[in-house]
Amino acid sequence: MFEQLGLIGCGLMGGSFALAAKRAGLVQRVVGYSKSPSTTARARQLGVIDIEASSALLAISGADLVLLAVPVAATESTLKAIRHLLTPATLVMDVGSTKRDVVDAALRALKENVGLFVPCHPIAGREVSGVGYADADLYAGRQLIITPIEHTLTSKVEQAAAMWRAIGCNVVHMTPEQHDTAFAAVSHLPHMIAFALMNSITGQTEGETFLSLAGPGFRDFSRIAASDPQIWRDVLIANREKVGAQLQHFQSALAKFKQCIDTGQTEELERLINHASLARAHWQKPG
Amino acid sequence: MFEQLGLIGCGLMGGSFALAAKRAGLVQRVVGYSKSPSTTARARQLGVIDIEASSALLAISGADLVLLAVPVAATESTLKAIRHLLTPATLVMDVGSTKRDVVDAALRALKENVGLFVPCHPIAGREVSGVGYADADLYAGRQLIITPIEHTLTSKVEQAAAMWRAIGCNVVHMTPEQHDTAFAAVSHLPHMIAFALMNSITGQTEGETFLSLAGPGFRDFSRIAASDPQIWRDVLIANREKVGAQLQHFQSALAKFKQCIDTGQTEELERLINHASLARAHWQKPG
Repeated sequence: MFEQLGLIGCGLMGGSFALAAKRAGLVQRVVGYSKSPSTTARARQLGVIDIEASSALLAISGADLVLLAVPVAATESTLKAIRHLLTPATLVMDVGSTKRDVVDAALRALKENVGLFVPCHPIAGREVSGVGYADADLYAGRQLIITPIEHTLTSKVEQAAAMWRAIGCNVVHMTPEQHDTAFAAVSHLPHMIAFALMNSITGQTEGETFLSLAGPGFRDFSRIAASDPQIWRDVLIANREKVGAQLQHFQSALAKFKQCIDTGQTEELERLINHASLARAHWQKPG
Repeated sequence: MFEQLGLIGCGLMGGSFALAAKRAGLVQRVVGYSKSPSTTARARQLGVIDIEASSALLAISGADLVLLAVPVAATESTLKAIRHLLTPATLVMDVGSTKRDVVDAALRALKENVGLFVPCHPIAGREVSGVGYADADLYAGRQLIITPIEHTLTSKVEQAAAMWRAIGCNVVHMTPEQHDTAFAAVSHLPHMIAFALMNSITGQTEGETFLSLAGPGFRDFSRIAASDPQIWRDVLIANREKVGAQLQHFQSALAKFKQCIDTGQTEELERLINHASLARAHWQKPG
């Protein structure tokens, strides 16, 4: 149980955490700060936060729990802005979609206090952004990845894990590198592909017509293309090496399809599709 | 109102049409045939069809409405197998995802009777296949594309359109070429990409681990990868030229992303993502 959550970034992710933590009785009050004063005000009006702060530092004044929910490239500057008020009793977490860059930023910003910082990534999100979509159920039933480093205090990791479990997450531990490799494959590259496909279609003269004909398959495939541009700009830049490596794997797989259709290799094409289809059906029961 | 539907292919698409047509009182009985006798038997047991036929020809004997719901490459042989029992009173339709190849197959198979054939493509489907998933609501609220050619009888087009409207479709007319170009962009290429991404991930040593970490974004993005291999093998081969052209557009768009992340062009990357994100959000309200 925490007295005060200092929330930096009152968007979808941060706002949903605040709502979930309050509902579960894990925090008594939430002091929030967003870069845009109107977002902070909106968060207060919606009851996502209890008190508006006019700076990140003020938001964490008196906080025993701090959550950074900002684009990952803002991690270092945010931690530098608040580090003077961190105490040994403070638990600091983030929700960034990349971890190696976040951990490096924390090391630079917090130095000997980096042990207070527990790098977290909840595998949840929506194609919409903003505090207006904050939802106490966003994290329920989702995985939460913790990527501690050598310096991370074990007691802080345990506190963080207990916190996320209490709002319904299944907590998984891995290294920042393992995390970034896996999510380059199953999240970052798929986002880049979805963005590129939307731009590819809208860049064509008849793009609007094409889109007017699209059905439920396209709707689901392209959903992540509507994701927040600042968040994803930072993710793709931060994890560019691993995204690049996954892109190479993907291009090789795609080239096999292209070759099959160009040369009319019906059987091999069916085998390739069958492999993908079984893997996807096996991954998760459709429902 | 039709006396008898001769259904060739008792899978998800054909079975769902039979259920919808019967529920709407548009057909009195359904005689069905599938290449696999066990599928035909299952369709009978599930009440999707009323009578099992042991051949395509027997399935359409006495039918005033014929629906082909088979992989598109089977169109020509199927039409050849049934053409001797077609009468001027018969309406023949298909549900194939490509149209130029289907129309060409119909021209070759039906010759002077090609006017009876109305090429149709309902923009509906699921990532599961088989008669067990047949659903009377599959087509409700979906678009139905009709791609008549010069020879297609106007009366048949009107009958077909009325039929699909009666089961809840919004009917759209276009040429086979327009259809195939649009669906290469919003359906065929996305399927090929989703298949390739699954194979790309499962082809890596840690692929299973990556998949175990994937979240709701990946779930939706990859859903179409579970689609039926025979159906999609035929679609990609039949529409390979237009799929290839769309692939080029996509590769150009993707290369822009790659360049931005490699060179750290943060602003341009955000602009590209923003463009995609707005286009996707504008296409359909999230919900």
